[in-house]
Amino acid sequence: MYKVDLNSDLGESFGAYTIGMDAEILKFVSSANVACGYHAGDPLVMEDTVRLAKEAGVAVGAHPGFPDLMGFGRRNMVCTPREAKAYVKYQLGALTAFTKACGLPLQHVKAHGALYNMAAKDMALAAAIAEAIAEVDDRIILLGLANSLMIKAGKEAGLRVASEVFADRGYQADGSLVPRKNPGAIIHDTDEAIARTIRMVKEGCVTAVTGETVPLSADSICVHGDNPSALAFVKNIRARLQAEGVEIVPLSGIV
Amino acid sequence: MYKVDLNSDLGESFGAYTIGMDAEILKFVSSANVACGYHAGDPLVMEDTVRLAKEAGVAVGAHPGFPDLMGFGRRNMVCTPREAKAYVKYQLGALTAFTKACGLPLQHVKAHGALYNMAAKDMALAAAIAEAIAEVDDRIILLGLANSLMIKAGKEAGLRVASEVFADRGYQADGSLVPRKNPGAIIHDTDEAIARTIRMVKEGCVTAVTGETVPLSADSICVHGDNPSALAFVKNIRARLQAEGVEIVPLSGIV
Amino acid sequence: MYKVDLNSDLGESFGAYTIGMDAEILKFVSSANVACGYHAGDPLVMEDTVRLAKEAGVAVGAHPGFPDLMGFGRRNMVCTPREAKAYVKYQLGALTAFTKACGLPLQHVKAHGALYNMAAKDMALAAAIAEAIAEVDDRIILLGLANSLMIKAGKEAGLRVASEVFADRGYQADGSLVPRKNPGAIIHDTDEAIARTIRMVKEGCVTAVTGETVPLSADSICVHGDNPSALAFVKNIRARLQAEGVEIVPLSGIV
Amino acid sequence: MYKVDLNSDLGESFGAYTIGMDAEILKFVSSANVACGYHAGDPLVMEDTVRLAKEAGVAVGAHPGFPDLMGFGRRNMVCTPREAKAYVKYQLGALTAFTKACGLPLQHVKAHGALYNMAAKDMALAAAIAEAIAEVDDRIILLGLANSLMIKAGKEAGLRVASEVFADRGYQADGSLVPRKNPGAIIHDTDEAIARTIRMVKEGCVTAVTGETVPLSADSICVHGDNPSALAFVKNIRARLQAEGVEIVPLSGIV
Repeated sequence: MYKVDLNSDLGESFGAYTIGMDAEILKFVSSANVACGYHAGDPLVMEDTVRLAKEAGVAVGAHPGFPDLMGFGRRNMVCTPREAKAYVKYQLGALTAFTKACGLPLQHVKAHGALYNMAAKDMALAAAIAEAIAEVDDRIILLGLANSLMIKAGKEAGLRVASEVFADRGYQADGSLVPRKNPGAIIHDTDEAIARTIRMVKEGCVTAVTGETVPLSADSICVHGDNPSALAFVKNIRARLQAEGVEIVPLSGIV
Repeated sequence: MYKVDLNSDLGESFGAYTIGMDAEILKFVSSANVACGYHAGDPLVMEDTVRLAKEAGVAVGAHPGFPDLMGFGRRNMVCTPREAKAYVKYQLGALTAFTKACGLPLQHVKAHGALYNMAAKDMALAAAIAEAIAEVDDRIILLGLANSLMIKAGKEAGLRVASEVFADRGYQADGSLVPRKNPGAIIHDTDEAIARTIRMVKEGCVTAVTGETVPLSADSICVHGDNPSALAFVKNIRARLQAEGVEIVPLSGIV
Repeated sequence: MYKVDLNSDLGESFGAYTIGMDAEILKFVSSANVACGYHAGDPLVMEDTVRLAKEAGVAVGAHPGFPDLMGFGRRNMVCTPREAKAYVKYQLGALTAFTKACGLPLQHVKAHGALYNMAAKDMALAAAIAEAIAEVDDRIILLGLANSLMIKAGKEAGLRVASEVFADRGYQADGSLVPRKNPGAIIHDTDEAIARTIRMVKEGCVTAVTGETVPLSADSICVHGDNPSALAFVKNIRARLQAEGVEIVPLSGIV
Repeated sequence: MYKVDLNSDLGESFGAYTIGMDAEILKFVSSANVACGYHAGDPLVMEDTVRLAKEAGVAVGAHPGFPDLMGFGRRNMVCTPREAKAYVKYQLGALTAFTKACGLPLQHVKAHGALYNMAAKDMALAAAIAEAIAEVDDRIILLGLANSLMIKAGKEAGLRVASEVFADRGYQADGSLVPRKNPGAIIHDTDEAIARTIRMVKEGCVTAVTGETVPLSADSICVHGDNPSALAFVKNIRARLQAEGVEIVPLSGIV
């Protein structure tokens, strides 16, 4: 029996500002990455998002990012591993108050935006994130980019790790993502994207932009719910995965 | 055997900014109220403060405040009980990540500044704070102003509550503090302040500014460590209490 | 010839967060109140909003608020007149950099949200705002609630003042707004709202909720553009005013 | 007659947090770089600092930084030239409100911390900063690292530029600073530092760490006032410069 998790970034609204169609996307995913107030989210939004996730039967994880609300955590910042470690602890702790109050465990942590991308390629940063989690609660799963240093760091820290793949992104021969500015970075054809994803889940590999077959763990697929067409894609990929005999389950049922 | 807790607000530094003589005051208090990043404190400061407290054998509590770094949480803000509740959860959760990583329990929560003062007189706000704590972890002690609505709210929420008194503040006949702008608000004479405190601890009462004897639980005495003379006062009151046979113990040993 | 200004709050987006239909509403108003980064807005949004206003021939004013992004500046905060004064200077100065770079004058200042409401009834706060403006540039118009202390404070500070009225709000016999929680606070009928507004502009009075005829300067009408029905109302009231022979002009053409 | 400016970073306090000995250092410098609320400073601090500078006869400039209070603007952030340009406009505008209210011109702009260091080596960022200034008010002087791209960008934007040198830093053969982690980065001997500075001012050159004589404009010397020994150094270098016949004057008297 094949299994995969569908994860989405949620709880990104802030104060009077709304982003995302959280209530809708929660019907289709199995794990929610909830923003923790640094790059997005605020305490009321976190509380609401955790409750909505619980009602939808979706597992909750923390989505810590850089302290850069103005840049939505998407801008690289030079911070020390010690800073990154403390930022991750702070944010996962903050979210844990809401999950505990709802009677939910904190299933996982997935770094957000620039922190995610930087840590994928920077072992000191990746280790800082993994150790932050391990020091607070080593039952929490680390969700990171497949084949990246985040996965390596998570294992070294003694954590259960889950590998994330992207349906609509091209991969390089070394298993890394094709940078967004390069040709082949985005798979524009929906059917092709879904077919590639099904192969990743069932066969554990993907065809690189240069033609090689690259091994890839696909524990979780990242999907978006910030606009109607993204939502339609999620429904589509979910249905196609299920039609292929792939069960959609939270990370805790996989790793 | 008489017992009392000495508590102090710590971890109020932020980024490049330093406030307080935390390492010094930790030698003399039994409980630390650690700022949680809203009115003061940041993740690195929280981590350092929790570790210092552990090394000093001082129990750690959260000191949540309004999201007003520019005003140090000292300015009244109109926020809904729902907002206050979520702010308290967020902040106590964030600190808990650091206490867990250090192997410490979160002993207590004490609201900071304007939130503390407003909640002492506003039952909806007091209840919001107490319920925030109870929903996350009902083993946490609520430390609030003696005779205030915070104490009432904590009991109603099923929490252990601890009553805080001030050595250098005048009290009114109803057990509330004399407002700072009124005559008798501050006890300027150190010996008188200490004598009053010893009486609060041993006899459970204080003489009001209008002459009445007012009953008062004195579980914990608030002391400051932000300047050398404050620090000298703490050493002094600690020694005098001990000389009177009063043991200095953390809140968890009292309530 | 009758003249009135139509003003709207613009530039309230922040980072990745969008609020308002600024490009649309700019087609119908004559003055824009641009958020300055404290309760809403950021430097990129300010730059874009000023440029859009210029292209639309709409006059630009600053819309300073409390430093409370999480509460969108809608929550009362206790701050000293000195703090309020400095906050207003800071924010109007920040916006002036963008208007100067665009070759526009800063036409006016209108306080936002809780700051606006508090200052309408608090002379010390109102004076602080008016003096902030006067000290920086006494050619700037102060736009405040008709019949409020803001108008009085602006005159005392030697500023040109403009009185703002609301099409859809009930008024009390003393010229103040009916509080939102009271009966008669909101005029739900669009035609009645517009008829009342036309009377305010042409006759300088309004019928209070208790029946009295109340004198009222109507230099500017506050309109909203944050949803399609609000936008439809603006088109409607603008057309009706023009059909009644009322010219829509920026504040600088009125006071 | 030789002339040089002594500049120092001031107004870096924030809310309840104090940094720097501003009142002391103002007795010895000729130009103040005032923080503008992004990496340090707040409106009250800005107001006080501008007033203190005026009373001391010290010229005032803006010291814009990255929006990173937690990192004091010292951490590199990846931001677009458009973002940097808008951030500089915002901050210099905000400060201008306070200088205008005090009857002072805004003499100069000097980027802070990571923004200063990044712009010294990144022409797009340097141009963004220079253009921000030029678009708001081309009478403002740009103060940047001697021999860096900031100076080039300022000239290209049509601004008057002033070159900043450091008394206690080593220089490389290309006129850039020796990186802090490299040998020779810091001149530890006070007399040597002062002698080098006098030579920079009088002869327009400095001996590089590799022995070459490097030409260098020395319009302004950066000095610090955040601790007593820094303050003593400033008194010392000021007296020595004056003894050598070098007049200490604000930037506007030099470029």
